[in-house]
Amino acid sequence: AGISLAAACGGRGVCGSCRALVVPVVPVTAEDAQLISPAELALGYRLACRLRAGEGDLTIFLPAAGAETELKLDASDELPGPVAPPDRSGMPVVDWHALDGVGSSRADSDPVLEGLRQQGLPARLIDRTLAASLLPPPPRAAALRGAEVVAIGRDGPPGRPLGLAIDLGTTKIAVYVVDLQDGRLLAAAAAANPQASFGHDVMSRLDHALRAPAGHEDLCRAALAGITAATRLACERAGCRSRDLLEVSLVGNTAMHHLVLGLPVARLATAPFLPALGSPLELKAREVGIEAAPGAYCYLLPPIGGHIGSDHLAALGALELWQRPGHQVLVDVGTNTEVSLATAAGRVFSCSCASGPAFEGARIRHGMRAAPGAVDRVRIDPATGAARVGTVAGKSPVGICGTGILEAVAELRLAGLLTPSGGLRDGPGVRRDGEGRREYLLAAGDGGDITITQRDVQEALLAKGAIRAGIDALLSHAGVAPGEVDAFWVAGAFGTHLEPRVALRVGMFPDVNPDRFHAVGNAAGAGARVALAFPAFRIALETRVARIECMELGSNPDFAGHFARALRLG
Amino acid sequence: AGISLAAACGGRGVCGSCRALVVPVVPVTAEDAQLISPAELALGYRLACRLRAGEGDLTIFLPAAGAETELKLDASDELPGPVAPPDRSGMPVVDWHALDGVGSSRADSDPVLEGLRQQGLPARLIDRTLAASLLPPPPRAAALRGAEVVAIGRDGPPGRPLGLAIDLGTTKIAVYVVDLQDGRLLAAAAAANPQASFGHDVMSRLDHALRAPAGHEDLCRAALAGITAATRLACERAGCRSRDLLEVSLVGNTAMHHLVLGLPVARLATAPFLPALGSPLELKAREVGIEAAPGAYCYLLPPIGGHIGSDHLAALGALELWQRPGHQVLVDVGTNTEVSLATAAGRVFSCSCASGPAFEGARIRHGMRAAPGAVDRVRIDPATGAARVGTVAGKSPVGICGTGILEAVAELRLAGLLTPSGGLRDGPGVRRDGEGRREYLLAAGDGGDITITQRDVQEALLAKGAIRAGIDALLSHAGVAPGEVDAFWVAGAFGTHLEPRVALRVGMFPDVNPDRFHAVGNAAGAGARVALAFPAFRIALETRVARIECMELGSNPDFAGHFARALRLG
Repeated sequence: AGISLAAACGGRGVCGSCRALVVPVVPVTAEDAQLISPAELALGYRLACRLRAGEGDLTIFLPAAGAETELKLDASDELPGPVAPPDRSGMPVVDWHALDGVGSSRADSDPVLEGLRQQGLPARLIDRTLAASLLPPPPRAAALRGAEVVAIGRDGPPGRPLGLAIDLGTTKIAVYVVDLQDGRLLAAAAAANPQASFGHDVMSRLDHALRAPAGHEDLCRAALAGITAATRLACERAGCRSRDLLEVSLVGNTAMHHLVLGLPVARLATAPFLPALGSPLELKAREVGIEAAPGAYCYLLPPIGGHIGSDHLAALGALELWQRPGHQVLVDVGTNTEVSLATAAGRVFSCSCASGPAFEGARIRHGMRAAPGAVDRVRIDPATGAARVGTVAGKSPVGICGTGILEAVAELRLAGLLTPSGGLRDGPGVRRDGEGRREYLLAAGDGGDITITQRDVQEALLAKGAIRAGIDALLSHAGVAPGEVDAFWVAGAFGTHLEPRVALRVGMFPDVNPDRFHAVGNAAGAGARVALAFPAFRIALETRVARIECMELGSNPDFAGHFARALRLG
Repeated sequence: AGISLAAACGGRGVCGSCRALVVPVVPVTAEDAQLISPAELALGYRLACRLRAGEGDLTIFLPAAGAETELKLDASDELPGPVAPPDRSGMPVVDWHALDGVGSSRADSDPVLEGLRQQGLPARLIDRTLAASLLPPPPRAAALRGAEVVAIGRDGPPGRPLGLAIDLGTTKIAVYVVDLQDGRLLAAAAAANPQASFGHDVMSRLDHALRAPAGHEDLCRAALAGITAATRLACERAGCRSRDLLEVSLVGNTAMHHLVLGLPVARLATAPFLPALGSPLELKAREVGIEAAPGAYCYLLPPIGGHIGSDHLAALGALELWQRPGHQVLVDVGTNTEVSLATAAGRVFSCSCASGPAFEGARIRHGMRAAPGAVDRVRIDPATGAARVGTVAGKSPVGICGTGILEAVAELRLAGLLTPSGGLRDGPGVRRDGEGRREYLLAAGDGGDITITQRDVQEALLAKGAIRAGIDALLSHAGVAPGEVDAFWVAGAFGTHLEPRVALRVGMFPDVNPDRFHAVGNAAGAGARVALAFPAFRIALETRVARIECMELGSNPDFAGHFARALRLG
């Protein structure tokens, strides 16, 4: 299928880097047993290099690489910058309370409610599903959310109250197990969004949802399967079970949000791309289909617009962009790249660019996610055309990630091997493939040569051009010159590995002082975690969202010009 | 099946009184079309006297008679007595608001939420199911419950906010369409509880739930089918649709409550008969399976104990028994009869007696509900043994209802035709049936003779004896003498037709001044209606329930003695 897997050992069954989720579950090999944890084996994880085609179809999900990336991103949980962290005041949205045992009782639920009331807590209701599990002996702890008991603990309060934040991306699903008392991140995991089998971009998935019989259900089920796999992995890493998760928050782009909730998407697919729902939701996690405590609620931040999701609202909130001084720009690079500008005058403008999945490694011949062995640094000697490369985690090169592609383009241009419009020229290091097309030899990997094709260069230029055009259109609309931007925040996995110098050189970003760039990792995930733990943050974002001014690039008369200019290399 | 139907015309297809719900739906006869409304025909109502056995099994529900009774009971909606009506303060729990149209919007939900917020209303959330139906044009009204929109009106606010109160009885399901602004009753309907096919009393249903494969589901589905049939009929009478119902309340005995919610019932079936849940519930009506507005909530008052349900709490609350002066007794006669005593000292004691369905017309040879044509008054000439009878609505006699049976027993005893222990003696009016057993000829009905059998007398004595023993046990436990009781409230359909003089004569009630008896109809249904419309009433009852002292008659050492004495006739 043209997918490059991280495979540090070259497919010899000894490194474990190619592990993938296989459905239906296939027999465990000796290598699987050695390299994959029992819990992952039970879920269906296997070494892709040991898989053999047998009877019947197999579906193979590739979450492992994403998971590695994610852990790297989350190494630093705290956000940089001069403003106070988001409002983390108030009681936890849910918390555990010990129950001492109530003597007489007229119903199995009494030891729970009476036990809480005796502590002065406003316990009034018990979740219906939970109520079916109150047979004696009485539980020794209860988790209270407002007036409602949402979980019980048979053996006393199980340590800290845990919650789950979900960032449902087009390509990647990231989940976080969070301590609800202080918002601390305990474990993270990621899965590829299994919806990819219905199309790589949002529009093709909407098309499937609208045209295929039961298309909407396909996409909903796929997203939930990915969420479930990632959640189980994160719980394993946090040493908890999914039924310990007392509260869930979910952010995502608007199409993902609507698809997973069963909301109509017909109007999302055509101009002016209006969502059905622009408000927050608070409902039982089980009603969405997410594994959690029996009575757990799932909270969903409101989408900003049809193309700008609640994930971007979460990112804006995590950075508190509108509280920072001067003009602030946030670029969240993904399959869709959202750009926001908070001006010194207190206005917030946002737009979304269809940058495609190139920077996430898709549609690139040897593209891959920023997993160990991915080329992310490139230097080309103009004299010899030879490349020196750096890789994630210093492993032998197995493929190239988004920042590697961008840097390769920059270096190829410097070395005179690319025209200003991105055509590969004949020269040292450039060769012809079997069909006579030019390609550049980047590195000799364990699994074969890693090359940059003419088409790879065009994909990279389309991606960086779309992002640049969006930024330019937004700045121009707001009347802010690039030099006036006080801070330029780059969110998303891509930004973490990006050197601003390189992005400036290929013209992906406008001419901003390189010192003003800040990579902030998965800001949307960070926002989802804060929204999970701190109700005041939810209300702040819900109040703010209606005042964000959305720009629809498709209907902007200047956009074509911005885009044409942005495609060129400097 | 030994069931006597109200059939005023004697089965000639001209009166319509025998109409019944038939599943699966059978062809409509000319008589059906003339006597049954189109809406009822569509639901499957047919004249029982026109039904012919055809291919395959039929299930026949007999709600019509109950519905007639119910309407009679509800003629007076206001409760008697000296105390102020229940707290009806505060805003309606849900209310309609007109939407004037919001100009620009970023999502299909904006005209709703923004439109409400512009009026200063705290609208924050939209029900998830409702959110899927917000396609343009924007609705012209929205129903707001707290911060959540639960319904929209396409053509403006549909008059008043409507709600549904449900009294889920063992034998009968009564539903009420209520104006949520003032608690006014707009329409009522009733259905026989289709669970009857799994047993007439609570214990045999619990037995089915616990032993039969999918037994619990059978009972849940049956109850919901009855609720749905009654709801549709009540809506037809109120001139609304079930999706106009913005809020639902449900009361019922504890087994019914647990069965319809899917709560475990094993511990309800054995001593000490503890409910799984003793607290209130507030959940989406769709989660219970009740037809209502898309986002409507269903509120369930807490059960008092295993044998004393939330229906009795509702009845106590409707009467505000604990606020009345002196000693107050409430007897709610049904298949289970609940008895409560509120003492002058402010304590409330309750118990439940297994009185059986005799007073509802079941297990009596010619028994029937108090529908038109039911004998409810009896005078026997001691000289001739001839009876003069009165019937409900003055129709030709077709059967005998609970009060008729009780009065027949009293008159038979006066005429010397019964021994003190209830044995029929030979004498004028007493004859032998085909098998040589004594029976008394009460009346010659259009459909054949209406008689009282030896077994009918025993059933009536068991029923009245159980009730009397419960009352005696409760008074004795609380140290209150019968003469000290200041008011004696009789609730339930039975009480409405009962003459206290007769009940006193057969010893069903202790020796209380007849002036102190008050029949109050379906007090549980009245309480469910107040709880539906007035949140303050919910909280008042939730707070009160834990202080009600339940007496388990089965474990009371004095009960057997009370029961033995109570079985005898004076």
